[in-house]
Amino acid sequence: MKILYVYAHPESKSFNGALKDAAMVTLARKGHQVKVTNLYAIQFKAVLDAHDFRIRARQDLFNPAHEQIHGIATKSLAPDIMEEIEKVSWADMIIFQFPVWWSNMPAILKGWFDRVFIQGFVVDLQEGRVYDRGLLKGKSAMLAVTTGASEEMYSPGGIHGDLRQHLSVIMHNTLEFTGISVLPPFIVFGAADMSREKGSREIDRYRNVLESL
Amino acid sequence: MKILYVYAHPESKSFNGALKDAAMVTLARKGHQVKVTNLYAIQFKAVLDAHDFRIRARQDLFNPAHEQIHGIATKSLAPDIMEEIEKVSWADMIIFQFPVWWSNMPAILKGWFDRVFIQGFVVDLQEGRVYDRGLLKGKSAMLAVTTGASEEMYSPGGIHGDLRQHLSVIMHNTLEFTGISVLPPFIVFGAADMSREKGSREIDRYRNVLESL
Repeated sequence: MKILYVYAHPESKSFNGALKDAAMVTLARKGHQVKVTNLYAIQFKAVLDAHDFRIRARQDLFNPAHEQIHGIATKSLAPDIMEEIEKVSWADMIIFQFPVWWSNMPAILKGWFDRVFIQGFVVDLQEGRVYDRGLLKGKSAMLAVTTGASEEMYSPGGIHGDLRQHLSVIMHNTLEFTGISVLPPFIVFGAADMSREKGSREIDRYRNVLESL
Repeated sequence: MKILYVYAHPESKSFNGALKDAAMVTLARKGHQVKVTNLYAIQFKAVLDAHDFRIRARQDLFNPAHEQIHGIATKSLAPDIMEEIEKVSWADMIIFQFPVWWSNMPAILKGWFDRVFIQGFVVDLQEGRVYDRGLLKGKSAMLAVTTGASEEMYSPGGIHGDLRQHLSVIMHNTLEFTGISVLPPFIVFGAADMSREKGSREIDRYRNVLESL
């Protein structure tokens, strides 16, 4: 498979860095072709703004959605967006690896969705090309995340509520919305204060998940 | 009341801009003191990274949570973060106004939470100061949002699921987690293609909500 690996952690020597390194080795060994978007390493621009559009549909008023549709149609989006669009188009599968901050993605990854997942590329609202008919139908995706809080805190009855429910805003409303089929998330709970041994076991568990893709 | 208004839309001439303008007038008329964080206008840095810390706890490894706790304790956070922390400390209430992008906040606002809502300022995990005992107890907050999709799409049985449920990741896991009490959200559904008349009615509805704070 052709796999795009979108990674959003600022420290390569972190546990997230170790998970990513394990993924790179495992996916290569299985014969997959892998491209990486290491958002922190490339200092990805997180904020959707008027600079994203080399040719504007309207100069007097900045409507992000309209400019995005126009930018796709006229191939005039900023080069860093075009590069990501080409990677997504190329990929059979996208893996998103990130630490859960505030029960959600880090801003740099949210900005990747804000800027790259564009109407006319991922969905076509006019033609009803969403969900089962989304423009990215045929691709698959998986979230691989770490949390500071424990599994108990993030359980359905826990104080933070069910993390899988929170992640559904990404899995359903964002990924499935575009036609992508989404695998169950890989979650390492309590990563902030786990032992080296538990860390190793979790990396092994991740390798097993990736080997069975 | 002392109100901090955190605003995250890139175009002042948009419907969001009109909502914000109406809020400024209404809140001033009611005698509230208002400070504004206009995230796009100040080009707020959205990405939590090592540059946020003037004095590092560790130079050899960047652990965001540890550096944040150390940064608060040593008052060595970047000046733009300190400014927001002072505003939050000052405020009795915080209003967050933003367009819903991907059933979620724009990246620039997520980055505000990633960088400003810091352990040791908003919660103290060691001392169990979270939720009812959170460090921001006594303050209140409200979300004021616009969506492109219709209310039907964002209803509990709709294709995108219940928007109020999606917003609970912000309202419960982020705001209530710090002790803040959260008012029901103000939501304008279908803002992408509404008539001028409907827009005016929605602005009036927002004024009424703000007048009754």
